[in-house]
Amino acid sequence: MTSWTPEQLHSIHRMLNPSTIAVVGATPRLQYGGRFVRAALQAGEQVRVYPVNPRYTEVMGVTCYPSLLELPEPPDVVGIVVPYDQVMRTLEECAQKQAGSAIVISAGFAERGDAGRRDLQGQIGAFARESGVRVCGPNCLGVANLKANIWACAGSRARVGGSGPVALVSQSGASAFGPFLTRAADLKLGYSYIASTGNEADLESSDFIRYLLDDPDTRVIACFIEGLKDGRKFMEVARIAAERGKPIVLLKVGRSAAGARAATSHTAALTGADAVHDAVFKQSAVIRVEDYDELLETAQLLAYSPPLTREGVSIVSHSGGISSLTADKCGQMGLHLPELTEPTRQGMNEILKGFGWAANPADVTGYANSESFPQILQLMSEGPEVGILAIASSGADSQAQQVIELRDQTDKVVSFLWTGSITATDGLNKLKEGRIPVFQSPERLARGLRGQINYHRWRTRCLDEGRVQVPGMSPAQRDAIGSLVSREGHVLTEYEAKQFLAHWDVPGVREQRTATADEAVAAANAIGYPVVVKVESPDIPHKTEAGALRVGVRGEAELRQAYAEILQNAHRHAPTARVLGVLVQEMVAGGTEVIVGLSHDPLFGPMLLFGMGGIFVELYQDVALRACPVSESDAREMIQDVKGARLLQGYRGQPAGDLEALVQVLMRVSRLGIQCEREIQELDLNPLMVLPQGQGVKAVDALVVLASSPAAASA
Amino acid sequence: MTSWTPEQLHSIHRMLNPSTIAVVGATPRLQYGGRFVRAALQAGEQVRVYPVNPRYTEVMGVTCYPSLLELPEPPDVVGIVVPYDQVMRTLEECAQKQAGSAIVISAGFAERGDAGRRDLQGQIGAFARESGVRVCGPNCLGVANLKANIWACAGSRARVGGSGPVALVSQSGASAFGPFLTRAADLKLGYSYIASTGNEADLESSDFIRYLLDDPDTRVIACFIEGLKDGRKFMEVARIAAERGKPIVLLKVGRSAAGARAATSHTAALTGADAVHDAVFKQSAVIRVEDYDELLETAQLLAYSPPLTREGVSIVSHSGGISSLTADKCGQMGLHLPELTEPTRQGMNEILKGFGWAANPADVTGYANSESFPQILQLMSEGPEVGILAIASSGADSQAQQVIELRDQTDKVVSFLWTGSITATDGLNKLKEGRIPVFQSPERLARGLRGQINYHRWRTRCLDEGRVQVPGMSPAQRDAIGSLVSREGHVLTEYEAKQFLAHWDVPGVREQRTATADEAVAAANAIGYPVVVKVESPDIPHKTEAGALRVGVRGEAELRQAYAEILQNAHRHAPTARVLGVLVQEMVAGGTEVIVGLSHDPLFGPMLLFGMGGIFVELYQDVALRACPVSESDAREMIQDVKGARLLQGYRGQPAGDLEALVQVLMRVSRLGIQCEREIQELDLNPLMVLPQGQGVKAVDALVVLASSPAAASA
Repeated sequence: MTSWTPEQLHSIHRMLNPSTIAVVGATPRLQYGGRFVRAALQAGEQVRVYPVNPRYTEVMGVTCYPSLLELPEPPDVVGIVVPYDQVMRTLEECAQKQAGSAIVISAGFAERGDAGRRDLQGQIGAFARESGVRVCGPNCLGVANLKANIWACAGSRARVGGSGPVALVSQSGASAFGPFLTRAADLKLGYSYIASTGNEADLESSDFIRYLLDDPDTRVIACFIEGLKDGRKFMEVARIAAERGKPIVLLKVGRSAAGARAATSHTAALTGADAVHDAVFKQSAVIRVEDYDELLETAQLLAYSPPLTREGVSIVSHSGGISSLTADKCGQMGLHLPELTEPTRQGMNEILKGFGWAANPADVTGYANSESFPQILQLMSEGPEVGILAIASSGADSQAQQVIELRDQTDKVVSFLWTGSITATDGLNKLKEGRIPVFQSPERLARGLRGQINYHRWRTRCLDEGRVQVPGMSPAQRDAIGSLVSREGHVLTEYEAKQFLAHWDVPGVREQRTATADEAVAAANAIGYPVVVKVESPDIPHKTEAGALRVGVRGEAELRQAYAEILQNAHRHAPTARVLGVLVQEMVAGGTEVIVGLSHDPLFGPMLLFGMGGIFVELYQDVALRACPVSESDAREMIQDVKGARLLQGYRGQPAGDLEALVQVLMRVSRLGIQCEREIQELDLNPLMVLPQGQGVKAVDALVVLASSPAAASA
Repeated sequence: MTSWTPEQLHSIHRMLNPSTIAVVGATPRLQYGGRFVRAALQAGEQVRVYPVNPRYTEVMGVTCYPSLLELPEPPDVVGIVVPYDQVMRTLEECAQKQAGSAIVISAGFAERGDAGRRDLQGQIGAFARESGVRVCGPNCLGVANLKANIWACAGSRARVGGSGPVALVSQSGASAFGPFLTRAADLKLGYSYIASTGNEADLESSDFIRYLLDDPDTRVIACFIEGLKDGRKFMEVARIAAERGKPIVLLKVGRSAAGARAATSHTAALTGADAVHDAVFKQSAVIRVEDYDELLETAQLLAYSPPLTREGVSIVSHSGGISSLTADKCGQMGLHLPELTEPTRQGMNEILKGFGWAANPADVTGYANSESFPQILQLMSEGPEVGILAIASSGADSQAQQVIELRDQTDKVVSFLWTGSITATDGLNKLKEGRIPVFQSPERLARGLRGQINYHRWRTRCLDEGRVQVPGMSPAQRDAIGSLVSREGHVLTEYEAKQFLAHWDVPGVREQRTATADEAVAAANAIGYPVVVKVESPDIPHKTEAGALRVGVRGEAELRQAYAEILQNAHRHAPTARVLGVLVQEMVAGGTEVIVGLSHDPLFGPMLLFGMGGIFVELYQDVALRACPVSESDAREMIQDVKGARLLQGYRGQPAGDLEALVQVLMRVSRLGIQCEREIQELDLNPLMVLPQGQGVKAVDALVVLASSPAAASA
């Protein structure tokens, strides 16, 4: 994939590292235009700032130009703060002046929800791509380079906080230059760069992330997303991030319908179903968080920590209540708190002399003092199963110093739960300045550690397997899909669907399509009784309700009767339906029903679904989703994610199902999803019977819905 | 119930409002004894402080006495800071000196997990109850009266924060006088009283809560519990709290096994299963929270807010990103964000002049200024469906003043999400001092509001129905239970169980117990074929596995054969089993299987369980629990809480089930649970068939397990 051109990345580079900044719509008043000038001027001598506004000759002590075209040099970035209907004209001048990039602060585009404004936004994007003057915005607040202290933005709080290892990409400008800035400063967590991307007419969050992955000073990417524009581009950038070991920590609106509505009104971006996003994030090693503070605390944990060597967490506190609460939250998040080994326990008991509790979690009580506490920390961090030490306390600078020293000489992760006042300076500031990851509450700590461990697991899995390759289609497969595109109708019949799926090695039941009762009898004799008999018609998708399906047909007489009745019922149910025959099928016994399906997500393309059959799916939404193609471990994880799939593992004396065959079918269907993504809109194997181990799986029913036109499917 | 005597409450009163404080084990050094003296002395002239220690004649400038017995007057409260093996002797001196109460700081009791220490703790409790010198602790840090500024405690941070409407009861002393103190001060949330209860040898959390409910200055009770000692006493105090409209906001360890283990090691209290606690809290209008900050933020919301009039939430922010994130979190918590009414929308649009977004959530952008913002707040709070206004911002003092003024003239709840720095003073402090409930993050806000709305609902339901009355047993019921107590064996047979349950109007299937094949045929003729045939034996609980059950028996010949085979199989399966006959039952068709059961929780007594039958319960833990007895609305809520119970509401063309009959059976079984709590340990109706509307329910199988002895059941 070549989602990013060198020219595009260079344009972003100039935007984020400018030597010259022009501001069209500059004013002396501190509204958006004035704030942009003020922010730019703070860079001092390293940046030449050019206010542009025909109404002024000078703004904030700097010469103001009547037009972009009259600037003495091409600006690296142009801040555009003009009414919405003047934006296009200004961009044209940017191109004429050979500007490097533009930031459109102006609002009034797609977020207004009217077609004309949406078109105007589309024009901005198209112009940016054609002219090479790449655009951030509109409806954003701009960008900042905290490494060089250059702010090209219209935020009211520009220049809060220092530089550090986290880059921030946020669609919402008011959030980026609001809570994300102030709360990071509270944590003394520094940013390398900040980009607020607004409506993303041209440059998307994924583009900025891609640029930032090349920045050696950026170790973690923090994102606030209201709606991704291009899901597959995001998956691609997440993949690169995983390969480089730079975690993406992401806060995304859309957990609920209420949030999605608000997000749509704001950025006019597509907000895909939340479960689809969760699936993709998991698949792409993206850590999703619930809140801006959680985002920042998780980002610092990842930015400051060495790579995880083990998943075990040990917890130590001066308070039994806090240690048990912290352990409880960790347990709730599924973290593993290994028992202390005997030497560790003995060592601690020697120090504690009967006070407190030498266990994990440990309660060292007020008895542990400045001499013994570091010894205890040392002991607890050394446990062979321990990868993370979590210290819950509120000690003074001397204790903070001990913690920093421990961190400096261990390869374990050292994290801190601060239990004192959030406005404390003694102890707390020293921890923050010493880059110890500090959490404000037990729940946040547990969530942060969960994110870190998930990242470690997901990334390992991602990289171990390499990228999932989808082979080219075989000639037979190409023919099969070719004949679909040329055919009439939107939905394949069951028989057609299974014939089609057989080309992808998806096993079906033994079955024959028959045109007469005699043919049906012959088919049943070949297959063996009992059999299932169904009408075959593209116009009767719900056969049971039409009375056009009989199961457990046990002999010729019963079969002939069923044959006649099914045709009768089908005709009564849908007099105009095209009837292509009657299917005679083997009756599958002794298996467990599951569903395997494909759907086409507008953001992420073909998605694979797995769930248990019957009412489980509907009542409990007990399904797993992944973007296609899935790797083998993705497929195994999908089965693990479905609670009801315990039925497949030999439940209550039932034989275990053939999980290997199921894994293979999941992978094959996901490849089909990619190979036929333009032709196939939806696919259901419902039910797919999972037979006992070694006996494989069999699709009992299948549905394939074609894209009404190839264009519609890939839209 | 008379859980609390006037003498006990008076003893707590003297402990929390002392004029004289003695400290046994007083030292000049600032360890526990010295800290207790220092804290007590801070009360100034209102309290006479008596250090006691034969090794000193003076501590911190105050006369030190060699023994309690030599004090010039009986102390209201005695702080005991001596080695564990001297605590009993000191308590005896307290009684001799007619002290009002005692606080045992000393540790080394049940938390050590050894039997001798547990016994010693038992002795403390027994002595306290007998002597009337009621005891707080051991292994606690004491109490504080913030209204009068009297601290009888050994915390290192005594005297942080001011007085206010929230009382704190915490088993963990280090938490009470640690994060709960400092974080409340951060919020400027004041306490009325603080009690740390430690191991609760005598006085429990529930006892302090009971006292605090009488305090006119306490509006909300905040609790941190590691394990309740007496669940039913807690339910009783929660009931009184609900009646008085004083919410209990509770943080409880035990969400996970890891937390429970730690809690057990700390307070040696019973930590019941978490789901049982959740059920009881819901039933008792107790708001459970996940974290200390969430506890405090929720407590302030309830303490500062007028009673809720409506559940709708409206959200307003200067940032689209924050407003959509906040709406998302609210949506995720199931809160309702009503659409704006047309006049509100119009009014807002007139103010915003096309900027921002006049909706719920509202994004008023930077355009809204100090003049227009309060007008918008006013408009949004006035919406007829709105009960709660949530403002997400970080404005200065002038904006805070506007918010306070709005709150002062509305009967709606006004809450604030602070999006600025957590260490900000401008704006934030004014809000806190003005008693506007301030939240730090969108998620916390949403959780707090959820708690407030739940409390409102639960309390309304609680009070509407009054206390659930359990009538006395009828003579027939008394006979039925009497005959159980005298009988042999631990488990009733299916037939016996159903006969027994019939006395509580729990309908079973039509069935007869037969002793010969001829009797079975006669029974089947009376009941009507098809029938179910089962062995009747107290020693074969799993009849299917024993091959001792046949369903769908359709005629006499089949019946005779089944009869013989069942007896044969039963004998083969369990040669020594007592066989009391063969059951012939009607076969129930057209119903939905559910489970109704009783179990005996060690903390809360008889618990009623409801769930869907079959594998739903096991795979999805899709069950609802309530403490017995349940009210009608409890029963309805249980059905609502079970996801799978949608099957009973007419699912996919199936007829709706007889929910009224199910509700009645739930209530009847719960009454039975109370009436027979000493005799019955477990009860299962599995399955209970819920027939279509108007046709009732029928227990198909039933199991009753008797308490091995009445004492065991009530232990």
